[in-house]
Amino acid sequence: MPFLATSQKSQQVTEREVPISTTVSSSNKLKEFETVFPGLVKDLEENAKQYKIPEEALKWYSDSLYHNTVGGKCNRGLSVPDSTSLLLSRPLEEKEYFLTATLGWLTELLQAFFLVSDDMMDSSITRRGQPCWYRKPGVGMIAINDAFMLEMSIYVLLKKHFRSHPSYADMIELFHTTTFQTEIGQLCDLLTAPEDHVDLNNFTPEKHRFIVIYKTAYYSFYLPVALSLYYLELATPENLKQCEDILIPLGEYFQIQDDYLDAYGSPEAIGKIGTDIQDNKCSWIINQALKRASPEQRKVLDECYGRKDAVKERKVKEVFEELKLEQVYLDYEQDVVGRIRKLIGEVDESGGLKRSVFEGFLEKIYGRKK
Amino acid sequence: MPFLATSQKSQQVTEREVPISTTVSSSNKLKEFETVFPGLVKDLEENAKQYKIPEEALKWYSDSLYHNTVGGKCNRGLSVPDSTSLLLSRPLEEKEYFLTATLGWLTELLQAFFLVSDDMMDSSITRRGQPCWYRKPGVGMIAINDAFMLEMSIYVLLKKHFRSHPSYADMIELFHTTTFQTEIGQLCDLLTAPEDHVDLNNFTPEKHRFIVIYKTAYYSFYLPVALSLYYLELATPENLKQCEDILIPLGEYFQIQDDYLDAYGSPEAIGKIGTDIQDNKCSWIINQALKRASPEQRKVLDECYGRKDAVKERKVKEVFEELKLEQVYLDYEQDVVGRIRKLIGEVDESGGLKRSVFEGFLEKIYGRKK
Repeated sequence: MPFLATSQKSQQVTEREVPISTTVSSSNKLKEFETVFPGLVKDLEENAKQYKIPEEALKWYSDSLYHNTVGGKCNRGLSVPDSTSLLLSRPLEEKEYFLTATLGWLTELLQAFFLVSDDMMDSSITRRGQPCWYRKPGVGMIAINDAFMLEMSIYVLLKKHFRSHPSYADMIELFHTTTFQTEIGQLCDLLTAPEDHVDLNNFTPEKHRFIVIYKTAYYSFYLPVALSLYYLELATPENLKQCEDILIPLGEYFQIQDDYLDAYGSPEAIGKIGTDIQDNKCSWIINQALKRASPEQRKVLDECYGRKDAVKERKVKEVFEELKLEQVYLDYEQDVVGRIRKLIGEVDESGGLKRSVFEGFLEKIYGRKK
Repeated sequence: MPFLATSQKSQQVTEREVPISTTVSSSNKLKEFETVFPGLVKDLEENAKQYKIPEEALKWYSDSLYHNTVGGKCNRGLSVPDSTSLLLSRPLEEKEYFLTATLGWLTELLQAFFLVSDDMMDSSITRRGQPCWYRKPGVGMIAINDAFMLEMSIYVLLKKHFRSHPSYADMIELFHTTTFQTEIGQLCDLLTAPEDHVDLNNFTPEKHRFIVIYKTAYYSFYLPVALSLYYLELATPENLKQCEDILIPLGEYFQIQDDYLDAYGSPEAIGKIGTDIQDNKCSWIINQALKRASPEQRKVLDECYGRKDAVKERKVKEVFEELKLEQVYLDYEQDVVGRIRKLIGEVDESGGLKRSVFEGFLEKIYGRKK
């Protein structure tokens, strides 16, 4: 699932300087962020070496860390230093950049843990243009244990770099809670849309909403900003609540947009061919279709959704077009963006929170893939 | 892997009373311990309900908790209240029993997390006389996510019941560290003895030792006693070090005994049919055989070890007998038990540690399956 288009430019968020780089382009930002990772892998290797781990196992762990964590757009990870700079209203100093980028990499490790295992649960073939980790020769089911090790690496690094931070325990609990939230989202997704059994009666807008919020919004949107607040010791209950109240609807909008683009985006623009229809995904689009379908249209959906068959997929898309779902989406988007803008406008900045943090997220998402 | 035989009686450890039970038999102790679990599941359900988790997903989670956590001998879990009572030299009060049994169930949840995933990685068929969780109809790969949720349940319960305990952060870190240790042990095991590729050159006594210590000894022996020390606020670096120095060799001895019984124990006594030879396991026995084998014997081992073939298994066992490995084991056992007794005798009790904690473990293990 792409988070934010790399081609997108949002000067509002990217205009931040750090001493080691004076450029503001988003690809340079990614490069700068990526320079932090090898040092963290070294930390993790040192930690494993204390146990006198055999050379072969150490190399395996290191390969898994690089293969599964690096190579994406790192938008979740980048949001931690970005948000911190916006909250401080100034460029970060070198040490601040390192620490917040480290927190960013922890969100990327959390995502790596989810992606390695999701790919196994979804029988996916490729990820970021490469074969999925579990499909590499010799890996197979060992990938389950590798996913676990990616997850535990979060806490090894948190301990190494934040043990004496006043919010250390809160950061740990935040990772635990976010992990559990994502897992219940994934469970609901797996139960609602098993790949081998299509039953559109399973789908409801409420379930779709639950899956989107828990499987995606918390870890992708709330987590990075909450980490930034903890880092700055600004994580009052009021500030956290304000973040949640905006970032969860924002994350929901983001995923609905993702669902829409899967069906309506051009492969050139979104960088992949949408497979939600054939994969029996409980997406926003099918839920909108079910709400509006006539008995005849419903029959087509029942017979053609979730089948690995291009002709049936085409028939589903025809029903979507008859139901004018593109317009339904565009109306939804106008509405939700208006609501989120209103929420952002109402943010109380007196406790150190900044509207600009949320504005940056919204602008990056709104209108992507034009 | 059986931890301790249920038929075994060790009055030294079992003579402990708690208010809710006056009997001391080990089956009653297990029943008493099991009465704590449903309340913990309720806590976990309440936690999940705060997210408005759909009914179907809640039931699934609850089923997984019961199926995967209950039904074993709970020796790891029982050691937390047992050790605590020994450290206090008195029966536990009701509240103390509840809290230490809760910590005990957290070690059982950690084990459940490992077993659900190990069974998938090992393609196992049954566990505790029932089909493995992932082999139940409709479960399959969802079991990966279920394993994750078992793991996160540890931290949900720790937060609920120990958030205000002075050692709360230490207990979290202990679980993280133990989890990571077990995972590097599992990784080494999977890399050393892949089921589909037999190469006895991969096996070395050092690797065997690494696997045994990290995959089993830390979570099975060190973790429960360390939790008890944290609970009682007796977890000084000196006490933890003394525990580690005894419990890791003890855990290593336990696993070597387990490896020995897999080949030499009668199925009636050990309650299962040994499969290590056919499963290409890097066990203590094969490592001893490799150390002693003549070129001819080595040839038999190379050709017959790790094959799903009863005749070949028989040939491997013949080599074991030619090499008198039963006697090698008995000599090892005499030696290691002597060394561990010496270590126990040297324990410094001035910081609150008690020799009886270790004596209880040793007596339960030594001579089991007579």
